[in-house]
Amino acid sequence: MMASTRSVEPDEKALSLDDVEELSKRVLSRHGLSSDHVTAISKLIVAAERDECASHGVYRLAGLVRTIISGKVNRGACPAVSTDETAIVRVDADGGFSPLAFNIGRPELVTKARRHGIAAMIINRCVHFTALWPEVEALAADGLVSLAMTPSHSWVAPAGGKKALLGTNPFAFAWPRTGDHPYVFDFATSVVARGEVELHRQRNLPIPAGWAVDPRGEPTRDATLALAGALLTFGGYKGSALSTMIELLAGPLIGDFTSAESKAFDSGAEAAPLHGELVIALCPDVFLGDSKSDYMKRAEAFFDLIETQGARLPSQRRFEARERTSRSGIAISRVQYEIIAGLLA
Amino acid sequence: MMASTRSVEPDEKALSLDDVEELSKRVLSRHGLSSDHVTAISKLIVAAERDECASHGVYRLAGLVRTIISGKVNRGACPAVSTDETAIVRVDADGGFSPLAFNIGRPELVTKARRHGIAAMIINRCVHFTALWPEVEALAADGLVSLAMTPSHSWVAPAGGKKALLGTNPFAFAWPRTGDHPYVFDFATSVVARGEVELHRQRNLPIPAGWAVDPRGEPTRDATLALAGALLTFGGYKGSALSTMIELLAGPLIGDFTSAESKAFDSGAEAAPLHGELVIALCPDVFLGDSKSDYMKRAEAFFDLIETQGARLPSQRRFEARERTSRSGIAISRVQYEIIAGLLA
Repeated sequence: MMASTRSVEPDEKALSLDDVEELSKRVLSRHGLSSDHVTAISKLIVAAERDECASHGVYRLAGLVRTIISGKVNRGACPAVSTDETAIVRVDADGGFSPLAFNIGRPELVTKARRHGIAAMIINRCVHFTALWPEVEALAADGLVSLAMTPSHSWVAPAGGKKALLGTNPFAFAWPRTGDHPYVFDFATSVVARGEVELHRQRNLPIPAGWAVDPRGEPTRDATLALAGALLTFGGYKGSALSTMIELLAGPLIGDFTSAESKAFDSGAEAAPLHGELVIALCPDVFLGDSKSDYMKRAEAFFDLIETQGARLPSQRRFEARERTSRSGIAISRVQYEIIAGLLA
Repeated sequence: MMASTRSVEPDEKALSLDDVEELSKRVLSRHGLSSDHVTAISKLIVAAERDECASHGVYRLAGLVRTIISGKVNRGACPAVSTDETAIVRVDADGGFSPLAFNIGRPELVTKARRHGIAAMIINRCVHFTALWPEVEALAADGLVSLAMTPSHSWVAPAGGKKALLGTNPFAFAWPRTGDHPYVFDFATSVVARGEVELHRQRNLPIPAGWAVDPRGEPTRDATLALAGALLTFGGYKGSALSTMIELLAGPLIGDFTSAESKAFDSGAEAAPLHGELVIALCPDVFLGDSKSDYMKRAEAFFDLIETQGARLPSQRRFEARERTSRSGIAISRVQYEIIAGLLA
């Protein structure tokens, strides 16, 4: 195991990325998840910690275990790919966690995008453990432009509404770049992640105005009332429209749950959402043919114009963390470490 | 010609929708636009006035004429469709206005979406006169779900930046509904349309905080400085990411201009942007097969949950206006009417 060289505070524990992988594997195996799923999820947890993207890191192990114990996930699910002459790849996740389903469908999506120019992958009946950026980054490594989206649980009110109906509905996009990390973004269409409100509640802090409404639909700065009420979408009615589009495209269009249906299925278990996912991949070689090299250079000139005016590309913070943690490992709080150790008891 | 039955103010002029169409056709023909383009654009102007969507109504005639006179548009352009075995339809707009190019490519896009499940239409070298909602509504009438997007001129700063680089980059989506208008949205990814800032300037009013930066990149509430500087995106860094995605997908990916390249090509003529457009169409019959009816009903249940909590679906205002104006026509200001009459001089 690689030794960590990172300096840590007294209330922190240093971990190498290998440590993170081993810890994740032990916790997930301990709770009976089959080994293919353990491997796929642990790789994502390592990728998240590597990129200092805590929301999908070891912090998630407790929720994964809760979901496994709830019986809402198929621990030994075998995702199955089916395909035909269309530009659509279908993956039935068999009620298991989503990362393995994505991995198994990916080669066929790549094949179809290269053949048809544009292709879609539908993942059905997967239990959410989906950070979308690793997926669109993987497709960028395959040379493809891609978009990905999923519903979640109904935690977010539509613009002008008062009740939770939409999910936090993440939307991700990646564009491959030669000799550089891809251009990648992945954001929730809620104004903040639900976990942010949870953190405010734990710390007894008020949330900023504009984040949420209470159960009566009135604006609130009380985190507890916000969690019982609804988050708001980012960007007012435009963000709400985008979130609604994600519900439709990655819900009914692909024969799967809306966020409200996922929440109803959960029936209070507080397990991860059961949902579908839609990935659209576009192949620059097919779109551009001989002029690909010219236009990919124009895209690079466009990125330069963003950066030279002092704006940052999304994901740069992650890529910088990646450099750093690959050398020196990470540190997590001892409290967090004890929680994870408890999952092994 | 249908008589207008609408009550009008003394400073207004009543017009039937037939009047609007005739007026548009006379103005555009007078300036030498070929008849296919005149017909296609006039239909859109009528649709916009019918829906009380003034931003693409008769108000635009002056800008269309300015663009024609500037020599930046091909008045007799013949759009050409080319296609192959992929799921991509290509329309070369031949430097003409965009509506005719869309109309000519649409049947092939529909065919490909029904065959492959998902298909893309690329429109290249078109001069902007694009309200995207009539396009995605037309595809909804064909039974397809669709997304459409275009760059424009570089008038908008990326989040964290200080200079205009992005376009106002509209994004539109439609979902077909049985026995009802489709679910449709179409919004600029800038915080407001540039025309809104122009209206504030004309009326000597300050613009709201958060709309724009001045030429030095500092926040401004001065409309003149804002027009010389840059608009901001809606929804902060998330809206900026979305706008960047539109630049890439409907720019380099389809072998066409970014908004900055369009602005450079314009070189001060203040003509409409020259750009490409990307339309992605998804066919529910192919995605859902026998379960289409079930899942389209689930989408309807989802729309009901938006409306019963008091939120409105986007475009409802337009659909209500459509009912009203189809009966009683519209009214435009006499000032506006005189401007248009001047275009016929």
